[in-house]
Amino acid sequence: MYIGVDLGGTNIAVGLVDENGKVVSKASTPTINTRPYTEIVKDMADLSFKIIEDAGLKKEDIKAVGIGSPGTIDTKNGVVVLANNLRMKNAEVAKEFRKHFDVPVTLENDANAAAYGEYIATGVKAECFVLITLGTGIGGGVVIRDDLLRGFNGAGGELGHVTLVHDGLLCTCGKKGCWETYGSVTALISQTKKAMEENPDSLMHEIAEEYGSVNGRVAFDAAKKGDSAGQAVVDKYLEYVADGISGMINIFQPEYLVIGGGISKEGDYILEPIRKFVEGNGYNKYLAKTKIQIAKLFNDAGIVGAALSAKKNMK
Amino acid sequence: MYIGVDLGGTNIAVGLVDENGKVVSKASTPTINTRPYTEIVKDMADLSFKIIEDAGLKKEDIKAVGIGSPGTIDTKNGVVVLANNLRMKNAEVAKEFRKHFDVPVTLENDANAAAYGEYIATGVKAECFVLITLGTGIGGGVVIRDDLLRGFNGAGGELGHVTLVHDGLLCTCGKKGCWETYGSVTALISQTKKAMEENPDSLMHEIAEEYGSVNGRVAFDAAKKGDSAGQAVVDKYLEYVADGISGMINIFQPEYLVIGGGISKEGDYILEPIRKFVEGNGYNKYLAKTKIQIAKLFNDAGIVGAALSAKKNMK
Repeated sequence: MYIGVDLGGTNIAVGLVDENGKVVSKASTPTINTRPYTEIVKDMADLSFKIIEDAGLKKEDIKAVGIGSPGTIDTKNGVVVLANNLRMKNAEVAKEFRKHFDVPVTLENDANAAAYGEYIATGVKAECFVLITLGTGIGGGVVIRDDLLRGFNGAGGELGHVTLVHDGLLCTCGKKGCWETYGSVTALISQTKKAMEENPDSLMHEIAEEYGSVNGRVAFDAAKKGDSAGQAVVDKYLEYVADGISGMINIFQPEYLVIGGGISKEGDYILEPIRKFVEGNGYNKYLAKTKIQIAKLFNDAGIVGAALSAKKNMK
Repeated sequence: MYIGVDLGGTNIAVGLVDENGKVVSKASTPTINTRPYTEIVKDMADLSFKIIEDAGLKKEDIKAVGIGSPGTIDTKNGVVVLANNLRMKNAEVAKEFRKHFDVPVTLENDANAAAYGEYIATGVKAECFVLITLGTGIGGGVVIRDDLLRGFNGAGGELGHVTLVHDGLLCTCGKKGCWETYGSVTALISQTKKAMEENPDSLMHEIAEEYGSVNGRVAFDAAKKGDSAGQAVVDKYLEYVADGISGMINIFQPEYLVIGGGISKEGDYILEPIRKFVEGNGYNKYLAKTKIQIAKLFNDAGIVGAALSAKKNMK
C-alpha cells in the first residue's frame, strides 16, 4: 500500500493507494498557506496516519509516500524550490516529512505526478504519453518509455510555456504569448468577458448572472443554447487549445494525448473540434495517429500519480 | 567499425565510424532522386564497400550500418514512409540495403540521427539533450535518458512544427505559423528580401549582389558592417529563433541545447542574443540552466549519429 499526497494551494488531499493505482480511501485538510511549511508537512503526515488507521492498517503497511506539489521541484533532493501559491521557497518537504514518518518519500511536480497517474490509469505501455491540464494555467506532463520527462534539473514538462502567439499577451511567467495565456481556463474567462462587453445582447450575460460570476462554463453553456457570440468564444478558445496540442503531437508523437482539468468535463464537445483541428494540421499524415482522449482520473490524478511515482522509485 | 550513411536530397554521404564516433574516412555520390529507390540504395551499399576496401578493411569488420534519411521514417521496419525530397514513399530501405550487404541496418530520421551524433560528441551523459538545426527548415532531435525521442510511430522530434505565431504564415507542412516558418534559413531569406525592398539604400543590396543571390548570410554581413536595416533583420530573426528555443527549454529542461545548421557558423554572434532572450524569458528561474551551445560535428553529425544509432541498436 502507498500514500499519495496532492499538495495544493487551498487543500492538502491524501489518499491510500493500492499496488494497482486504486484509491482505497482519502481525506483532506485546508493547506493554510500562510503557515511555515513545516506545519503544512506535519498536517500531511498526520492526515496520512489518520487514513492508515481508519483503514485498519499500520504504518508498516505503507511502502512509500509520494507527494505532488505545484511549483519548481528538485525531485532528486525532495525540495520545493519555489511554489508561489504555497509560499514555499527551498522547502525541504521530503526530509521534513520523514521526521514524522520514516518511509521512502518521493516529491514530484504535481502536473508531472498527475501525468504519471493518468498514464498508469490508461493501462497501456506507451512509448510516449502526454497529459495536458486546462486549468488556472496549462499544466501537463510527459511519460516517455515508462518514466516522467523531468529534464536535467527536475523542472521539465512545462508544456503551457511554449509560445503560441509570438510577442503576444504577457504570461505570469514573464514571457510573452505562452500557450497558457490563450488556452487556460483563466484565458477563456478573459476571452468570455471581452466577448460579453462586445455583445451586450449575448446569452452569456444571463448565464454569468446565474453562476454569480463569469467562469469557464459561461461561453460553453451559451454556445450550447445557440448563442453565436458564445459559440465564437468557444471556437476560438478551442482553436488555441488545439493549435498547442498539434505542436505537442509534432514534438512527441505520443500514443495518447489526454486532456484533464475542469474544461475536460465538456467531453466530446471539446474533443471533436480539437481532433478535427489536429487532423487537419498534423505533420504526420502517413503513420499511426495519436489518440486524443479525456483524462480518466480527474481529481484523483495527483494522488494516484504521486503514490505510483513513489512506488516506481522503490524499484 | 560502423558505417553511417547520411542520405540527402542532393548527396549520399557515407562514412566509416569507429566505436567512439570518430569519422575514419568518408565518401559521397549524387543522390539523383529521380531514380527508383532501389538504385539509390545500391549506390549506398557500393559506396560503403568502397570506403571499407579503401581503409584496408573487410565487410566482416563492419558490425552495423546506420542510415539517416529525411522524411517520415518507420524506424521499427526500416522504411522511408514519405520523403518528398528523395521522392520516396514506403521505400523499404533497410531491407533493400541488406540485399547487398547482410549486416544489421538501422534507419533513423536524419535530424534525430544528427541529434544522437551531437549528443555523443558532446561527451556527456545528459538526462536530456536537444539539437536544433537551422536550415531549409528547423530540424532537430531530442535525446532523453540516452535514447532518442521517436514517439510511438517513429515520427517524433519535429521541433520546428510547433506554432510560434498562431494563425501566422502558412508552413510547408500545411499548418499555419510553425516555428520553422519564422526561424529557418528559408524564413531568414524571405525576411531579408522583404527588408531589402523596404530599404533600397541598405548595404544588403550590395552584399547580395556580391553573393549572386540573397542568402542567409546577407543580413548578418550587413549588420556586422553597421547597416541598421540588416541589424533589424538579424535582431528579429534571432528573436524568433530564441522564442522557440525558450519554449523547448520549458518543455525539456535539457542539460544542453545545441544549435546546428548553416547559421550556426555565426557562433557567438547568434549565441549571445539567444542566451539573453532565453535568460529573460525562461520559466525556470531558480534551478540549473540549460547550456546553449553551437553544434560540434556540423556536417558529420548525420553520419556519426546514424552509425552510433546502429551501434546502440546492437546492444
